[in-house]
Formats: sequence, structure tokens, C-alpha cells
Amino acid sequence: MTLLDRLGVQLPIVQAPMAGVSTPELAAAVSNAGGLGSIGVGATDAAGAQKMVQDVRARTSRAFNVNVFTHAKPTPDLSREAAWLQAMKPLFQEFRATPPAVLATIYESFLDDHAMSAMLVAAAPPVVSFHFGLPPREQIITFKAAGCVLLATATCLAEAEAARIAGMDAVIAQGWEAGGHRGMFDPRAPDDQLGAMSLTRLLVVRSGLPVIAAGGIMDGHGVRAALNLALSPPNSERRPSPARKAAPTRSTAPPSRA
Amino acid sequence: MTLLDRLGVQLPIVQAPMAGVSTPELAAAVSNAGGLGSIGVGATDAAGAQKMVQDVRARTSRAFNVNVFTHAKPTPDLSREAAWLQAMKPLFQEFRATPPAVLATIYESFLDDHAMSAMLVAAAPPVVSFHFGLPPREQIITFKAAGCVLLATATCLAEAEAARIAGMDAVIAQGWEAGGHRGMFDPRAPDDQLGAMSLTRLLVVRSGLPVIAAGGIMDGHGVRAALNLALSPPNSERRPSPARKAAPTRSTAPPSRA
Repeated sequence: MTLLDRLGVQLPIVQAPMAGVSTPELAAAVSNAGGLGSIGVGATDAAGAQKMVQDVRARTSRAFNVNVFTHAKPTPDLSREAAWLQAMKPLFQEFRATPPAVLATIYESFLDDHAMSAMLVAAAPPVVSFHFGLPPREQIITFKAAGCVLLATATCLAEAEAARIAGMDAVIAQGWEAGGHRGMFDPRAPDDQLGAMSLTRLLVVRSGLPVIAAGGIMDGHGVRAALNLALSPPNSERRPSPARKAAPTRSTAPPSRA
Repeated sequence: MTLLDRLGVQLPIVQAPMAGVSTPELAAAVSNAGGLGSIGVGATDAAGAQKMVQDVRARTSRAFNVNVFTHAKPTPDLSREAAWLQAMKPLFQEFRATPPAVLATIYESFLDDHAMSAMLVAAAPPVVSFHFGLPPREQIITFKAAGCVLLATATCLAEAEAARIAGMDAVIAQGWEAGGHRGMFDPRAPDDQLGAMSLTRLLVVRSGLPVIAAGGIMDGHGVRAALNLALSPPNSERRPSPARKAAPTRSTAPPSRA
């Protein structure tokens, strides 16, 4: 059974979640049009996200995707941040603005937001996608038990392999061209900065997961090109993975922008 | 008439020229197999290049491509280079090697190599391709009068437009993933670092030239994907360019490595 069949999605198009920008209305419109609509809840809290999920469900009975940010919590460094604020002061002044006294964390990680996690498991959206990393094993088991299909972003083969081992149902190949922040698991890790074309093909052949291509897909020709990249590899490269048979899907928009 | 028809090339595959690495034997084998073989002469002089062209012709009667480096001549800066040599000294010592006393220019630019230029015009290979920039107008007219089809590498739309205005017959879209040095016209210019997928599609829609995709194309599925990117744009985007009708060709290997 392909991923599309499993979700009842007709078109292999995933609308990119854009935290703080894309709306439940957009997600529902995409799902109603036959693609997979997405909302990004990385910029809101459990109550806000619950409302967004309800708003999508009020507008469509079809599958949709809820995207969360699973980044490592930043470690505050007050003296370094004070130095940055000091260095940025002229820029604030140029725009007649006042710099903040201290820096605050802008997005709480899903990994630390237990209210969000409990809400999402209870809401059980058809698809949950993870950006910047993977959730812990217990959470993956809980989401799967709730019936959610799970996706994770990968910018390299190692991240895709981690996603497969963790039990993700498909991987989003986020090419270098993809808009917004790249979903690297570790921003300090070496980065090959692979474009969507090479990354997608690499993950199709090597990751053992269905692949959703993202980045630089600008029109129908790009969509068709991405579909060709996502076809099953020739027999000589085939590895024993049932997931390989799943249909390719892909995003035609930058995957996340916050 | 498509570019393939014009050259009598059966398969839309261009073997990447790799100066100092790829051989006349490889180029002739690719041409004999139905693609467009290439030699890169950026690392040799006129006599060496003449021998390479003769070696290709001895092995095939089909079309082939000669690639030259059209970079701006570097401006020597003795004190800066001495500082670099000093800084690199420990690395040389680690490998029991002696650093050079001064730095020498490794590749003479085709723009300064009049012997090379005269030899190539006389030899009149079926295709000449330019990397790192465009030759002057008089040289382009001379090559065209000699019957050469002319290609140039572009890493962005502005370079592709310059190539079209200069009279190039097709443009090579060198994506960020492409191996070796990128053919930027000006290494100090702003660089969007577009991947092959987005750059190819952008140039197909906007450049007004036939496009050869390069970068991250790893197997037949990648070739098919690149072909889809290179199809004519839909009517709504069509612009009045006869070149637009030419068939797409593309490279399946990194375009240049020296």
C-alpha cells in the first residue's frame, strides 16, 4: 500500500508547513484539492495548535499534516548574547527601535513541550511531521498507536537513515534550495549542502524510505522531474525494503518558514 | 532544428570535460556511443590541446566538445602570497615537502592564450564550450564562422542571459551540486548557489537558450528528471525564442574538475 493510498491523498503534492505564516484555511484548501495540506505549529503553543487543528478539521474531512519543530533547546549564554545585542545596537538605532534587554528563546522545542505533545496525540492528525530532528522512541510509539503517519525532514543520508531506524513512515528530502531554515539535526555537523535533485535521488536509492522531494520545484515540469527521481531504483540497486514500493510524494513549496 | 540534430548526436548526454583528467579516448568513446564526448584543454597549452583534438579525431568521426577556461587573469600580490606560503609552511613540513618560493599561475586563461585560440579556430571542433566566462565578441564571430557550436556554463540567470546576448548556442546550467569548480563569471559576485533542479528549470523558462543540466545527476532516473526539467515551458510562460524549441541535452557527470 502506498503512502498516498494509506492517507487517501490523490495527488502526490505536499503543501509545505510554514510555521507562523501558513493557515488552517490554506491547509484545508490543499487537502480538499487532492493534495496533503499542512499546518506548522512550531510558532504557537498547545492551545493555539489545538485551535489550528480544529480549524482544519472544520474545513476538510481529508488527511492533513501537522508539523512540529524538534530542535535541541538552545543553551543561554548571557554574556555572549549581551555582546550580540551591543553589536546590533546601531542597526536598532538606524530604524529608531530599542533592542531588547535580554534575548528570549523564540520557539519552544516540541521535545520540551509536553502540553503540545499530549494535545497532538489526543487530536491524532492523520500525519505528523518533524523538523530539525526526531522525537524520542516512546513518543513515536505513542503517535503510531494513535494512528498518525510520521514524516521527518532530512538534509543528508545520515539523517534519513536515522529517520528510518526511528520508525518514520517517509522522509522529506530537503534540498539546499528549499526555502526557510534547513532541518539539519545538528547545525554544527558537517554539511554537504546537497541540492534537491541529488539528495532526493540519493535518499530514494539508499534510505529505504519513501521520499518527499522539497526545494527548487517551481512548476509542473519540476513536479514531474521530482516524480522521476522518486521512482524505484533499478534492480541492481534494490535493497530489501518494503517501504521502497511506496509512491513518491513531494512538496512544491519551501517546506518551512518561520 | 534541435541542437542534437545539428550535431548529429543521438543521445542527450554530454560527457563533462575534466581538464587534466579526462582523455581523448574517453571523449571518443562517448561520442561513438551516441553522446557528446568532451575534452578539457584548460590545463594544457596549444600544442598539447592540438594533440588531444587530433587524438579524438583519430578515434571518432562524430561530434565532440572542446572546453576552455575563460577566467579573468589573476592579479599577483607578492606580499599576500608570501603570507599564505608562510601560513602553509607547517602543512608542507608535515608532509616533508618544501613550499615553493613564489606562487605561479596554474592555468593560463583562454582569453590570454592567442596560440590556443588560433589553433582551436583552425581545428574547428564541432563544439567549443567556455567555463568561467565568455570570450570577446570577435572571437565568438570567428568560431561561428569556423562552424563551431558554442556553449557556456552559467550558475545563475544573469550569466545565462549574458551567454544568450553574446551568441552562445546553448547554456550549461551548472547546479550547486556539480563537481569541481563552479563556472561563475565573477567569483566575488553575489551567489544564490542554486541547485541543478531549480537552476535548470529557471534557465529553461527564462534564458531563451537550450539548456544542458549539470550537477547531481547520478543515474537514469536523474537523466529522465533532467529531461523533464528541460521540456518547453507551458504556453503561458512561452517567450518568442526559436532556440526554445531545441532539444534538451545534459551532462551526467560533474562538468569540470581540474
